[in-house]
Amino acid sequence: MVVTKTCEVNTLGQGDTHNLTEIVAKHVRTSGIQAGTATIFIVGSTAIVTTIEFEPGAIADFNEVLEKLAPRHGNYQHHLRWGDDNGSSHVRAALAGPSITVPFTNRTLVLGTWQQLTLVECDTRPRRREIVVQLMGE
Amino acid sequence: MVVTKTCEVNTLGQGDTHNLTEIVAKHVRTSGIQAGTATIFIVGSTAIVTTIEFEPGAIADFNEVLEKLAPRHGNYQHHLRWGDDNGSSHVRAALAGPSITVPFTNRTLVLGTWQQLTLVECDTRPRRREIVVQLMGE
Amino acid sequence: MVVTKTCEVNTLGQGDTHNLTEIVAKHVRTSGIQAGTATIFIVGSTAIVTTIEFEPGAIADFNEVLEKLAPRHGNYQHHLRWGDDNGSSHVRAALAGPSITVPFTNRTLVLGTWQQLTLVECDTRPRRREIVVQLMGE
Repeated sequence: MVVTKTCEVNTLGQGDTHNLTEIVAKHVRTSGIQAGTATIFIVGSTAIVTTIEFEPGAIADFNEVLEKLAPRHGNYQHHLRWGDDNGSSHVRAALAGPSITVPFTNRTLVLGTWQQLTLVECDTRPRRREIVVQLMGE
Repeated sequence: MVVTKTCEVNTLGQGDTHNLTEIVAKHVRTSGIQAGTATIFIVGSTAIVTTIEFEPGAIADFNEVLEKLAPRHGNYQHHLRWGDDNGSSHVRAALAGPSITVPFTNRTLVLGTWQQLTLVECDTRPRRREIVVQLMGE
Repeated sequence: MVVTKTCEVNTLGQGDTHNLTEIVAKHVRTSGIQAGTATIFIVGSTAIVTTIEFEPGAIADFNEVLEKLAPRHGNYQHHLRWGDDNGSSHVRAALAGPSITVPFTNRTLVLGTWQQLTLVECDTRPRRREIVVQLMGE
């Protein structure tokens, strides 16, 4: 059995984060599927979906390491192609990835207490993000 | 068809690694599912599941790069929140991710010979880790 | 319903990239499955599968950050074990990961317009790569 949901989130640009746990958990509770996997996938190549303890300190630390890894104002060959300024966004997102798959049982995601499904915007401007939540199981 | 298994592993703290391949392979062999996917997911936000050649050199190299990326004794805003000392753990785990999905056919994971399913503890203290292995297929 | 396909790609060594989108999309179109997930998994521990905007600039930027993270000519303990020279390859692949899971609906992957499924070779020599594309759904 497969259930596909989409949700949209407005972001404020690079470093903005959103806790997706509750919206995914709600889809899991109401899907009619008892056990299976939830795949959370962000459409687009300049944002990350991962898990982190969703508190401002850990999120700031994560963004700081992303900045060290691929500085916002570094030199990127991507900028030469389209006149874009989001080379750092592409690199960050390609490294950490646009999706995650989380098992659920008894209609409940197997996340830890301090482990939240999190969207990390990497693009340099505000975006309207489409997130696909696909549930599969029985 | 969905089969959910959990296993527990005691870790020694940051940098400790465990080869999960055999336990996952055994669940695949005995699940009654011929072909499908195995999703290996660690409950908690301070550990990594990935694949690597499970030999001490490659593992030491991986840990060294994680240390360069998010130093154990760096300054983290997460520390200010709870008095924790594991800011580096959260950043490492959020970047590399808590899970992996591996296909299997004929009750056999499609891993390469030198490619092992590996848990990398990132927390700064020993942990008892719960790992969910969810198999789905037909 | 589960459909497993494999494809092979010849790579030119570290930094070589291949756009896998069309071959995966074709398998999705012809599998007989309407909706579900595509898991793209590379057999072996020295290559990455991710999504990126597949244009030479963004790819060069990604490779440059991988080089900064785990330099090709750095010192690796893995080299001491087998006389290999691909310690950088193992570290890069373990961090970014060998696989991705992408939902599809109406026989169409939910990728963004500028988001391509991409194989990034990290090994230091040319390789013949086996990629498993497993489709599951209904």
